[in-house]
Amino acid sequence: MHKDIMPRQAPATPGLENPGRRQILLGSASAMAAVTLLGFTPLARAEEPKSLPDYAAWKERNALIVHSANTMETQRDAIGQGVITPSDRLFIRNNLPTPPEAIVEDRDAWEVQIEGVKNPGPITIGELKKLGVETVASVLQCSGNGRAFFPHGAGGTQWSVGAAGCVAWTGVPLKDVVEAMGGPADGAEYITSTGGEELPEGLDPKQATVERSVPMRAMDQALLAWGMNDEPLPLTHGGPLRMVIPGYYGVNNVKYVQKVALTEAQTDVKIQASSYRVRDVGVKGSPDQPSMWEMNVKSWVTSPLETAGKGRTMIYGVALGGTVALDKIEVSLDGGENWQQARFLGPDLGPFAWRPFVLAADLSPGEYRVVSKATDADGNSQPEGRTDNERGYGHNGWSDHGVTLVVS
Amino acid sequence: MHKDIMPRQAPATPGLENPGRRQILLGSASAMAAVTLLGFTPLARAEEPKSLPDYAAWKERNALIVHSANTMETQRDAIGQGVITPSDRLFIRNNLPTPPEAIVEDRDAWEVQIEGVKNPGPITIGELKKLGVETVASVLQCSGNGRAFFPHGAGGTQWSVGAAGCVAWTGVPLKDVVEAMGGPADGAEYITSTGGEELPEGLDPKQATVERSVPMRAMDQALLAWGMNDEPLPLTHGGPLRMVIPGYYGVNNVKYVQKVALTEAQTDVKIQASSYRVRDVGVKGSPDQPSMWEMNVKSWVTSPLETAGKGRTMIYGVALGGTVALDKIEVSLDGGENWQQARFLGPDLGPFAWRPFVLAADLSPGEYRVVSKATDADGNSQPEGRTDNERGYGHNGWSDHGVTLVVS
Repeated sequence: MHKDIMPRQAPATPGLENPGRRQILLGSASAMAAVTLLGFTPLARAEEPKSLPDYAAWKERNALIVHSANTMETQRDAIGQGVITPSDRLFIRNNLPTPPEAIVEDRDAWEVQIEGVKNPGPITIGELKKLGVETVASVLQCSGNGRAFFPHGAGGTQWSVGAAGCVAWTGVPLKDVVEAMGGPADGAEYITSTGGEELPEGLDPKQATVERSVPMRAMDQALLAWGMNDEPLPLTHGGPLRMVIPGYYGVNNVKYVQKVALTEAQTDVKIQASSYRVRDVGVKGSPDQPSMWEMNVKSWVTSPLETAGKGRTMIYGVALGGTVALDKIEVSLDGGENWQQARFLGPDLGPFAWRPFVLAADLSPGEYRVVSKATDADGNSQPEGRTDNERGYGHNGWSDHGVTLVVS
Repeated sequence: MHKDIMPRQAPATPGLENPGRRQILLGSASAMAAVTLLGFTPLARAEEPKSLPDYAAWKERNALIVHSANTMETQRDAIGQGVITPSDRLFIRNNLPTPPEAIVEDRDAWEVQIEGVKNPGPITIGELKKLGVETVASVLQCSGNGRAFFPHGAGGTQWSVGAAGCVAWTGVPLKDVVEAMGGPADGAEYITSTGGEELPEGLDPKQATVERSVPMRAMDQALLAWGMNDEPLPLTHGGPLRMVIPGYYGVNNVKYVQKVALTEAQTDVKIQASSYRVRDVGVKGSPDQPSMWEMNVKSWVTSPLETAGKGRTMIYGVALGGTVALDKIEVSLDGGENWQQARFLGPDLGPFAWRPFVLAADLSPGEYRVVSKATDADGNSQPEGRTDNERGYGHNGWSDHGVTLVVS
């Protein structure tokens, strides 16, 4: 397997043409072989590209774009207008093959090792459930959501907007666990979580283990979560236990978590050391570059996406502020020349949640470039453009996320 | 069919023994015949009592107690700890057989007649969707939830605690519709909504039509809802369009709504005139008695329900304030002698929503009577006892809603 464990796929998103990249990846038999080498897992290779794999068979097929057996995004028109994304429409992005069902047969028996505390040791989910509990609504979003909009052909799944959803997570605040184990050891600077996936044979753990470090400031909101949308956390999404860092990009929310360590340094495993690093196009990843931690302010329109009848049209979308509450959401019907303030829809589930929004627009026949721009409570607004970067991370530019609407 | 259209059933709730009533209803063949006469609909008679009827086949069978084909409550241990009840666990209570699937085939074409406004007329869902939109989380609860706890054998489904759930409704605020149609006609005192069910042959519309009036003060929050939990409103729950009066008992949330009239008087249809009226045991219903409108403050424990291991136990439940936000929730482990304040869990979805709660209790072996008592922001608290009334409505007494927990 290639040293880069992130699956690479041809752009399979309907309506997202990227001929340059398609040519590179699909244009020859040798390129196809390269695709395989570059990271499809054995599971991915065994599946028809467009069917749901067994571990995700319970998902709503019509709501998903299946990029591979490990990567499925929510169709833009299936994101909906709700404050919580129904579980069967939530995107999937796994770095490694999903563990066997056996690990969720006796959920309360699952053990996680806690290190970097005064009294380290293992603790089971059954024990965690007695330490404390909270339910937090937060956006789960892949670092590469919006990658398909980068023109340079950034490697990795060609996510459009659907590698994101808003989930109600239930679990124990990590700070309660740390407190119960005597508090942080001296010098703790990072929370380092290790996934429980079994590595495919022959893989170097330093290259393939899912192990992520986030700064200690995330202790304020970190949860060891056993529940999702008021159901036991599905295996598909990291059950029986997942580290959830509200407001942080998806990769930090380590699935099947088997170890949590408070550490002086970030882990040197590849997924932390050089992957998920923001750097210029053509530059290799390294630990001195920014890591994909806190999400930035972002929004996109979800309906209508292509056509509408003339007259009154309700324009819907979703907006998120990462770790900061939203202040306002604006919509432009002319590609950003003029902006109107839209209205948030439904109850506010807190700073880490997304907020659906709606604008009532009276449209005469014609073509409209509909874009949205969110501003958070700290005054951060989405930029117009994008920051081109090697892996196509963190795209929150409002221009690329717009849609062209034909009204007749 | 008997003039009382409310289905009557034998008590089928596991763990809820009511020998007197069971004897009356099930003790003889003639009593069984009486049960049928007293209100099972043709649909109910055609089904096995314990299987899900076709229109509800998508529900989670294990989460439900099936009282009849028209009445299913959520198991107490399936109510969960979430801010929103997953749709497949939500209770069902229909007054009439469910309309055919055909009515949800072209949802936007469904027409509702608006009367008692300056410019009355029909309006389709497609048109309503352009008038305005809001999403409101509110508790849906049957007036008779808790009926099984009345000792006098109140007629109607023997609901325990599970004829309630919290739903995110999406629709147009009724006030936006009324405004668009010129405002209320002079003298409007009530909002009167009429269900679109076809009446079984031979039934007198005055006796059987589902038509409910609520006071104009409900205009503040009333919605004509087409969505539930971010999905199109299922036929099972009144789709394509339902009147939703947040904070009001379930019966006022008229399903398949085909007419909404602002009226000077309440409708004289039986379900309004004499049913859903609170009166002393043995007294007939009449319009001068209180109607089941605003819900009262209420709570109940959902976990654990029977046994727990010694040591730390998390006690969960749900609380609601009807139309008033909650102020606090207290739990007693000794049947109400001593109270401890519990903690609300998860985001607050507004005054009409319920709030899950949790109390961490350290329990030594023994028997505990666990009760909960909610207080709303106006200072209303649940009473200890119940107000006995003919039909067993509105029970919010904390004593009857408690559970006996054996800790070993």
